[in-house]
Amino acid sequence: MGLTTRKMIAADLPAVREVLVASGAFSDEEVRSALDILDAGLAGEQEDGYWLFVAEADAQVRGYVCISPTPLTTSTWHLYWICVDPGARRCGIGRALQAHAEQFIRARGGERMVLETSGRADYEPSRRFYEQAGYRPAGRIRDYYKPGDDCVFYCKIL
Amino acid sequence: MGLTTRKMIAADLPAVREVLVASGAFSDEEVRSALDILDAGLAGEQEDGYWLFVAEADAQVRGYVCISPTPLTTSTWHLYWICVDPGARRCGIGRALQAHAEQFIRARGGERMVLETSGRADYEPSRRFYEQAGYRPAGRIRDYYKPGDDCVFYCKIL
Repeated sequence: MGLTTRKMIAADLPAVREVLVASGAFSDEEVRSALDILDAGLAGEQEDGYWLFVAEADAQVRGYVCISPTPLTTSTWHLYWICVDPGARRCGIGRALQAHAEQFIRARGGERMVLETSGRADYEPSRRFYEQAGYRPAGRIRDYYKPGDDCVFYCKIL
Repeated sequence: MGLTTRKMIAADLPAVREVLVASGAFSDEEVRSALDILDAGLAGEQEDGYWLFVAEADAQVRGYVCISPTPLTTSTWHLYWICVDPGARRCGIGRALQAHAEQFIRARGGERMVLETSGRADYEPSRRFYEQAGYRPAGRIRDYYKPGDDCVFYCKIL
């Protein structure tokens, strides 16, 4: 399988939207929020805005990642979304997107990546993915998203 | 001393700006960021946007607080800025602003308030203020703001 990663362009939007919905990991509100961020990220190319990258397997967009430098910090970035087509999992697409984002951040002097994810049981595979990728838990807020749905913070030193 | 709290209006901006600069707690970049948020908060009255309140002591604006509902959560709010004129400290202004914000949030069904602050030694009074107000540490990210300047997360159940 030919796997490549590159900057997202407007023409990728329909495929990215499909991946986002198909992933099944996000509520309608989360999908809307992710789409708003895609529009903002594609519209403006600001150093301090959102940066979007896609992964293509066999010339098909199968996942994307959204990162942004964290305001009021010197070298911290946030990982907002990373999303892989459920039909293309276990192919290294998530890892490739992670690696692309980390290289991009390091090249800009970034030194750590922070993310927030759910503590719910059905997010266990996501948390394992992050932990295997070198993220360490940095805190937890109970019932953050909704009752029974904690937020877990992770940080990776780049 | 007559102490009152109320919604911020555009006419408060010059006094709020003075409090923000005089507080000495914020870098130039942080002051600019706070002012941008004030402009955004005063411009739009959106339920999901920033909410701003001031405290007046003897008819003079001496502090303000900025809060916002946290996106993609059902009942979590963030406290972004709370700032008191250094010449009017130890008068209960910070507490009054906290109480006003908490009442406002509770009236809208909010159940917890989250904030991020610095782990630096010179922020010890701020952290003590939050801890005495019922906030509990929920995590820490090393060197988050800059080398030697950790981020500490707090959460208060309302």
